[in-house]
Amino acid sequence: MIGIVPLSVNPSNSFFQGRKALVTGAGGHLGSQLVCRLITCGAEVTVFLRSSTDRWRLQNISSEIKILQVDIKDFDIVALAKEIGAVDTFYHLAAAGVSPHDKDASAMMATNVMGTLNALKLAREIKVRRFIYCGSCFEYGEGNNVNENTWPLPLSEYGASKVAGWVLANTFYRKYGLPVVSLRPFTLYGPWESKYRLISQVINNLDEDKNVELTSGHQKRNFVFILDAVEAFLNAGSITNVEGQTFNVASQDTVSIKDVVVLIMRLMDKQNKAQFGVLPMRSGEPEIISGNTDKAKMFLHWQAHTGLEEGLRQTIEWVAACKKKKSYAS
Amino acid sequence: MIGIVPLSVNPSNSFFQGRKALVTGAGGHLGSQLVCRLITCGAEVTVFLRSSTDRWRLQNISSEIKILQVDIKDFDIVALAKEIGAVDTFYHLAAAGVSPHDKDASAMMATNVMGTLNALKLAREIKVRRFIYCGSCFEYGEGNNVNENTWPLPLSEYGASKVAGWVLANTFYRKYGLPVVSLRPFTLYGPWESKYRLISQVINNLDEDKNVELTSGHQKRNFVFILDAVEAFLNAGSITNVEGQTFNVASQDTVSIKDVVVLIMRLMDKQNKAQFGVLPMRSGEPEIISGNTDKAKMFLHWQAHTGLEEGLRQTIEWVAACKKKKSYAS
Repeated sequence: MIGIVPLSVNPSNSFFQGRKALVTGAGGHLGSQLVCRLITCGAEVTVFLRSSTDRWRLQNISSEIKILQVDIKDFDIVALAKEIGAVDTFYHLAAAGVSPHDKDASAMMATNVMGTLNALKLAREIKVRRFIYCGSCFEYGEGNNVNENTWPLPLSEYGASKVAGWVLANTFYRKYGLPVVSLRPFTLYGPWESKYRLISQVINNLDEDKNVELTSGHQKRNFVFILDAVEAFLNAGSITNVEGQTFNVASQDTVSIKDVVVLIMRLMDKQNKAQFGVLPMRSGEPEIISGNTDKAKMFLHWQAHTGLEEGLRQTIEWVAACKKKKSYAS
Repeated sequence: MIGIVPLSVNPSNSFFQGRKALVTGAGGHLGSQLVCRLITCGAEVTVFLRSSTDRWRLQNISSEIKILQVDIKDFDIVALAKEIGAVDTFYHLAAAGVSPHDKDASAMMATNVMGTLNALKLAREIKVRRFIYCGSCFEYGEGNNVNENTWPLPLSEYGASKVAGWVLANTFYRKYGLPVVSLRPFTLYGPWESKYRLISQVINNLDEDKNVELTSGHQKRNFVFILDAVEAFLNAGSITNVEGQTFNVASQDTVSIKDVVVLIMRLMDKQNKAQFGVLPMRSGEPEIISGNTDKAKMFLHWQAHTGLEEGLRQTIEWVAACKKKKSYAS
């Protein structure tokens, strides 16, 4: 599955050639695709994985990366720093609560706040050239076309935990000069997404000719194709003079859940399988959350290139290929 | 020592008569004085104390309050909620890192973030009428006359942890309607202050005719007399229509450390005992941190009444009285 790179994405970023990158949360959707991309750019990649993390997304590349069994919540910082040595770019993506099925707020605080503190302490110890904090659109709470100067007003414990990590990372920037760059991905989707998330779940159900139970679907989200988001993370690691800055990783595709599902049904030629309004809205779920893209365009020289229809097509193809190979996991 | 109430403070707040209040961090400077004041107002007060907390400030009133041995970082929320029953006003003051000698950032996150999450969960369980989050001026980082609309830019792990707790508390307000009011005390001082803090330390050294080693002392702080701050906390518990709001607990007394020390020397008639510039500035210490008082005046109907000279006089008298009785602890 490695090598699914849409034509719109620059196939190489020479900056990372021979550089050492460290990635936490590498087993996740974004983390795994970032690791793949860093490898294709010639980076020497070390990842932290918990012993319990499902490594299905890394199976094909496990021989090309250095895997350390580390739980970001609790490790010996000095010992690990010695083991790792110098690192150029530290991508901190490990987080709890990304899946809406994870509701344990204490686990979110432990990983997303205490864990981020540990990551920041380690980053100081190994004197990284750049520390990328992966935040979330849920830091904002809700809003249309929100920009990075908007005060975060989260509506969930997850959003609050990501704000806490962001404040902490930027405190390390102000206090110690740690070169932090923060990114706020909006609704990511694409190949390798967990099958429990909305788009994958819809595609899977339709593929099996099942009905899909949904909320009313009127809530709007800003959809970003996973490989576009990866490019934003590459740029955040390589572009100069952006330390201390925060960037939305958003696209032009602000669409209601209903419209996305209708589009998937059309692309898969499976009509009338969606049962809107059967499920209740989740507590604290925002009506609309979409991000302004100006700052990322201007300073990160990045924008999402893959339109929703093209991104969905690739996702549908990927699901079909997985089913053929029976290689689809959580 | 109970009953030191300056004339400027309203001797009773009838709102609390017969109401049940819960106070975390009750062993601290502010917490203990708040508990005393709630008792004089006729409140029925329950406090949480860790087994390790020094209870010297509560000795005289321990028979008038219900003390539960609870560590806010880790307790059984449902069981404790049953034991406590209904509570009217929940004052959450427990925090790690208040003393500049506490440098353990992990302990700050554990108490100030995880502990605050636990306090908020408990508050929902016992359906409090008001939850008061005690923040800190260090959430702002630095600035002159900063108001509550200023984006927090902390310069220390402690400040970041207090912002994290504040974001979390206000997320509970937005998501669950928990009636949260947040207060940001500036530099509190007065009777019952720890002898390791600046003003107490200076008074103690001068009292013993010792020299006082200091930094250059040019950094400016906004000094608030402890009993004035207590009144702000009473109002935050009793005034209507302030849920979801944040208020500075600040005064008109923005003064350099040097000027405060010089004033103490004059009041104690001990000149030339201060050695400015002997100690280095602490990393991340702000040049100036002072708060705008307009919002608290307008909506909390509160302002500090005790001028710095009067507050210092009372503190000096209290230190002298303690030394006579040999009752001074940490």
